[in-house]
Amino acid sequence: MAGVPQAKTPIAILAGRGALPFAIADAARASGCRVHLIGLTGFADPALAVQDDVHVTQVGRLLKSLRAAGCRSIILCGGLERPGRLRDLRFDWGVLRYLPRLWRVLRGEGGDDRLLRAVARFFHEEGIEVIGVKDIAPDLLTPPGVLTRLTPTPAQIQDSEAGLAALRAMGPFDIGQTLVVLRGRIVAVEAAEGTDAMIERVMALRENGRLPQKRGEGVLIKIAKPGQDMRFDLPTIGPETVEQAAKAGLAGLVLEAGRTIILDREKTLARAETLGLFVYAPLLDPAVA
Amino acid sequence: MAGVPQAKTPIAILAGRGALPFAIADAARASGCRVHLIGLTGFADPALAVQDDVHVTQVGRLLKSLRAAGCRSIILCGGLERPGRLRDLRFDWGVLRYLPRLWRVLRGEGGDDRLLRAVARFFHEEGIEVIGVKDIAPDLLTPPGVLTRLTPTPAQIQDSEAGLAALRAMGPFDIGQTLVVLRGRIVAVEAAEGTDAMIERVMALRENGRLPQKRGEGVLIKIAKPGQDMRFDLPTIGPETVEQAAKAGLAGLVLEAGRTIILDREKTLARAETLGLFVYAPLLDPAVA
Repeated sequence: MAGVPQAKTPIAILAGRGALPFAIADAARASGCRVHLIGLTGFADPALAVQDDVHVTQVGRLLKSLRAAGCRSIILCGGLERPGRLRDLRFDWGVLRYLPRLWRVLRGEGGDDRLLRAVARFFHEEGIEVIGVKDIAPDLLTPPGVLTRLTPTPAQIQDSEAGLAALRAMGPFDIGQTLVVLRGRIVAVEAAEGTDAMIERVMALRENGRLPQKRGEGVLIKIAKPGQDMRFDLPTIGPETVEQAAKAGLAGLVLEAGRTIILDREKTLARAETLGLFVYAPLLDPAVA
Repeated sequence: MAGVPQAKTPIAILAGRGALPFAIADAARASGCRVHLIGLTGFADPALAVQDDVHVTQVGRLLKSLRAAGCRSIILCGGLERPGRLRDLRFDWGVLRYLPRLWRVLRGEGGDDRLLRAVARFFHEEGIEVIGVKDIAPDLLTPPGVLTRLTPTPAQIQDSEAGLAALRAMGPFDIGQTLVVLRGRIVAVEAAEGTDAMIERVMALRENGRLPQKRGEGVLIKIAKPGQDMRFDLPTIGPETVEQAAKAGLAGLVLEAGRTIILDREKTLARAETLGLFVYAPLLDPAVA
């Protein structure tokens, strides 16, 4: 990791989907950094005031933009589903040069971790270091403790311990980082579908009677994978996650402190208070404190 | 376990949803056993010619029926979603007597394993042994080997190894027994939603471009949980599972030999052949051979 970025060169932010790139850009500027924002076409929010736009495959264009701006470090952030349909991709000439190295990355062999490490290695070989949220916007990371007035009950703590143990066991297999525990039973595990789709599934299982319908039960648990590269892909929640969890009748959210991100923290926690959900952030890895 | 049932007393079959109870009753009769079929109201197929019907909570009625028929052993089989809405349940007087012991079972504290072990203990205390498919219809169990003419490629074997390792790690947490691996990545994990819903999710993720759309890729893997009580709840597939997997564009099915069930084996494997799917059954636990 590059450590604290030097104020002399601007930080590049390669922005995918969602609100995280905005939050990171704001935080970087607030700490006195210059920012070079590059939007990933088709992913980045059009409301983002970017300096440049690239397609996910326009590697030549991206490197040229980074060099022209004098960037020595980059932060990759925001949602970036893998291209399912190769015909939707646009290529540039740069891609030909990098094709052998890019091929495995694009094919998406292996899980997300391997993919992301390959991307970081690629940038490093080009003289640009991939940095993380911790380096530029540490306040986005979830602080430890119970973050709402409402605290989890002993039964909910027990549910969250059961879920945390299962997530830790699954970690080496690069699956998901999120699951839902209801009355001691793991009722949903997230993989490629994403957190929102998983919460919707719990909602549907309650509606069709496959799960108990009593509301205010069940805990959503989200942690970083053991050994996760802190430079990217940190599990993220925001106000909508809380809204969704409330709709699904869950009692609260358990988020790993220091290795997950709460977007719009004030608003997110206020929504949780209003909707009667607890947010509890245990510190699982003392090394991140 | 009761071992090979005595031909003198009839075997009770408590039938839940689906085709498995039919298959077990046929197999038991073919091996010369008398059968006392009891359908679980709301679950058992109405086409099943039963000797008796009970609601899932009519414990007094069930025990009376078993004793009247002289049954000393019972096999519990077929789908039985947990009652999500308690108001849909019907009680009888017997339930009052057994209420303290039943309460934990009905509330569904903990995972399926604990629930089922509690049920087995309950029957045992009433002098009736819960037996398994292995004891009465061993031919329903998946035999080891590649069961189709089409065999898995080395890459598919590798995918299946990755999935098997993850399922084994998840075993102690009583989650699911089924997942889908695509290009080395675990893209779906089954929990409370069931196998069909999980396959449908993979289909949807392919259709909306979140997963590669190329067909003939991806492996469905289904195993028994490590240490699973062989008396019930064995993971089961049938012709529809193969149809679904083909619709989702998967390349094949990997089933644990000896500890999973293939319903209508001939028809299921014939459908796999027709649809171009392999079915591969590795023997994971030499003790079941």
